[in-house]
Amino acid sequence: VPSSEQLAALGEFLAIPSVSLEGGAPMRAAAEWVAARLPNGRVVDDVALGELPGPPDAPTILVYGHYDVQPVGDTSEWTTPPFRASVRDDRVYARGATDDKGPVFVALETARAFGDAPPLTVKFLIEGEEEIGSPSLPGFLRAHADELGADLVVSADGAMWRPSEPSVPVAAKGLLALDIEVGGPASDLHSGRHGGAIQNPNHALAEILASLHSGGRVAVPGFYDGVRDVDVGDVPFDEAEYLASVGVPEPFGEPGYSTLERLWTRPTLEVNGLHGGGDFTVIPRRASAHVTCRLVPGQDPDAVFAAIERHVTAPPGVTVRVTAQPGAVPAYELPTDHVAVRAAVAALRHAYPDAEPLLVRIGGTLPAAVVFERELGLKTLLFSFSTADENLHAPDEFFRLERIDAGIAAWSELWRRLSDMMRG
Amino acid sequence: VPSSEQLAALGEFLAIPSVSLEGGAPMRAAAEWVAARLPNGRVVDDVALGELPGPPDAPTILVYGHYDVQPVGDTSEWTTPPFRASVRDDRVYARGATDDKGPVFVALETARAFGDAPPLTVKFLIEGEEEIGSPSLPGFLRAHADELGADLVVSADGAMWRPSEPSVPVAAKGLLALDIEVGGPASDLHSGRHGGAIQNPNHALAEILASLHSGGRVAVPGFYDGVRDVDVGDVPFDEAEYLASVGVPEPFGEPGYSTLERLWTRPTLEVNGLHGGGDFTVIPRRASAHVTCRLVPGQDPDAVFAAIERHVTAPPGVTVRVTAQPGAVPAYELPTDHVAVRAAVAALRHAYPDAEPLLVRIGGTLPAAVVFERELGLKTLLFSFSTADENLHAPDEFFRLERIDAGIAAWSELWRRLSDMMRG
Repeated sequence: VPSSEQLAALGEFLAIPSVSLEGGAPMRAAAEWVAARLPNGRVVDDVALGELPGPPDAPTILVYGHYDVQPVGDTSEWTTPPFRASVRDDRVYARGATDDKGPVFVALETARAFGDAPPLTVKFLIEGEEEIGSPSLPGFLRAHADELGADLVVSADGAMWRPSEPSVPVAAKGLLALDIEVGGPASDLHSGRHGGAIQNPNHALAEILASLHSGGRVAVPGFYDGVRDVDVGDVPFDEAEYLASVGVPEPFGEPGYSTLERLWTRPTLEVNGLHGGGDFTVIPRRASAHVTCRLVPGQDPDAVFAAIERHVTAPPGVTVRVTAQPGAVPAYELPTDHVAVRAAVAALRHAYPDAEPLLVRIGGTLPAAVVFERELGLKTLLFSFSTADENLHAPDEFFRLERIDAGIAAWSELWRRLSDMMRG
Repeated sequence: VPSSEQLAALGEFLAIPSVSLEGGAPMRAAAEWVAARLPNGRVVDDVALGELPGPPDAPTILVYGHYDVQPVGDTSEWTTPPFRASVRDDRVYARGATDDKGPVFVALETARAFGDAPPLTVKFLIEGEEEIGSPSLPGFLRAHADELGADLVVSADGAMWRPSEPSVPVAAKGLLALDIEVGGPASDLHSGRHGGAIQNPNHALAEILASLHSGGRVAVPGFYDGVRDVDVGDVPFDEAEYLASVGVPEPFGEPGYSTLERLWTRPTLEVNGLHGGGDFTVIPRRASAHVTCRLVPGQDPDAVFAAIERHVTAPPGVTVRVTAQPGAVPAYELPTDHVAVRAAVAALRHAYPDAEPLLVRIGGTLPAAVVFERELGLKTLLFSFSTADENLHAPDEFFRLERIDAGIAAWSELWRRLSDMMRG
């Protein structure tokens, strides 16, 4: 169990409403809070940096995480206010508790536990734009490449896929976000006076969106180009338990694949948001949808966007615009025999002696891993103590308190292992 | 042109934010404002009543209108604030200017013009719930049937269908409003972590909505039961001008019917509002649509609702609920040879000597006309000086100032004609 000092500190961190989509003063406050707890901490361009020097011949790792959080959505759907940390049932509830303030806190506490004698040199980079696609990260890495030099990135972002077994992610999906906007009449019209004579943008949007899937499969020609089947290995997976955990009566997805394969290895196209008109008698002048695709190895984000753009055509009487959001990222993979994966497995065995760590793939996206590889030539080990069921991006987001002690134990062992294994 | 006293008074009326969907103090304030300008005006249960006694043997009419208005929607789409009357280009802009405060104002001014010597007895009933379906009107009419006794209702609600010729509506469509709600997972989910494995309510809703139409026709089996073809007569209609006025490049609707027939005689099913999730990476736990059907003579609202409910079935993995809003109304028709129609045509010829009045049908709904017939056994003449192009239910709603003088002239002549024609 975490100490009361730890709980108080984490509570302070969680109380800062650092919603990157909204920006403002809380972003800087969260960066300063992180920097104050880091060894040699400082804030540069709203990024919290730190450094803990190790033995001269030891390897160097760069610890990555983010202090920004998702918007809270409808606060009435939260049991307690999203920016007041609330402990219930050995969990701490707050926006950002598991994505990514709790896991970042584990890394900060690990550094404190080693004091001034860590087994390797540890640099820290905790950014504040992850939830909006890390637009400044590539430029920041280029500008600070020398001081950020390392042998490996260890990310406190990502998530263990379930609470029962420790796991090491060896792949994360890529992300392509886009908007589909249907334009109709010059102004909102009375649906009684004009209905039936002109195309309604809501109808056109429904028709377009319905055409994107067929029988659980993405129906956009070319969408699956380059996608290969991936063996998920011998991973225990209880489908009924999964369905109960998300609260749906039955699975639904691409025919020919198991639920686990769909989650881990298959690309997706999800309509996240629908908006048009209102609850009154109107034919709206526009209707729009926000869409995100999760991409797997072999898919090129630009090619997928082009395929969608080709497929989405305007029904009669309306215009349609498809706009890609900047910052699309391809999928990320780490070879399963990479030294970092082996060190992580050993560290998890140390922290969880009764469970064999699993190698897993995650459906979420880690743009940072792609950026670190491209900008600094570094592979990234995903070593988060978040768990995928902790209401990420949803109301009542939480973080299991037991993950703090276990996380510190595993991170400490990871640093020792990496010190040994990367030196030789 | 209206006098400055008239403009000031109308401006006062328009400044009252009497949005019935929102309710509150402005409703009472608007009712009081109307009552203060009415002969023998008073407010009973938020309805403004008045009475102007005519000669003992003259007929009695009951003037109907409403002081409530639609919500304003996104105020950023208004050129000037919706509750500040703004005169530009001989029009007054404000929410409610044409629906229905301007036309009600015409009726109020007509009574003032006759002073205490009207050609017939005129009672007034100006209600405040028209935009939410007049839920209290039937009970109010029953409770006050004696004092509201009359020979005909004359409605200041409704609209001339275009500014170029005066017109008398002889039919109005009925209305059926319903909501379609799709329920998915127990809570909003991260679309990266769960996408592809479960049904997304946004996808299911799009599929359902796309199934409601096919090639411009409503695709719900049974929807058109009882609908008969109606001859719209020899009415000049410039389709290109109509399309330009609403700002769409081409018409779209039911095959086999002209644009005018679609507008006047064909039933419609319009998706007014779409809502699900947001512009972030979520699979929402619910998605919903607001739908209204405009019904024509021969259609039964209950039967149409039942047909839609039968047709809307849940895709795999989600639940669907279809809920009818209370207050559905059938279509309304007035025989074209009714004395009220003949009097109205004569009155319009008087006010507009250079144009022959047209008999038209309107796409909007007048629940009040159906209610007056059912509760008091009275036919309703629609005699509004609103025009259908005046941005009803939309941003920048306006009312043509010339309609005030022309309206008073026509209303005055109508009262004289009805006094003659209904006496004999």
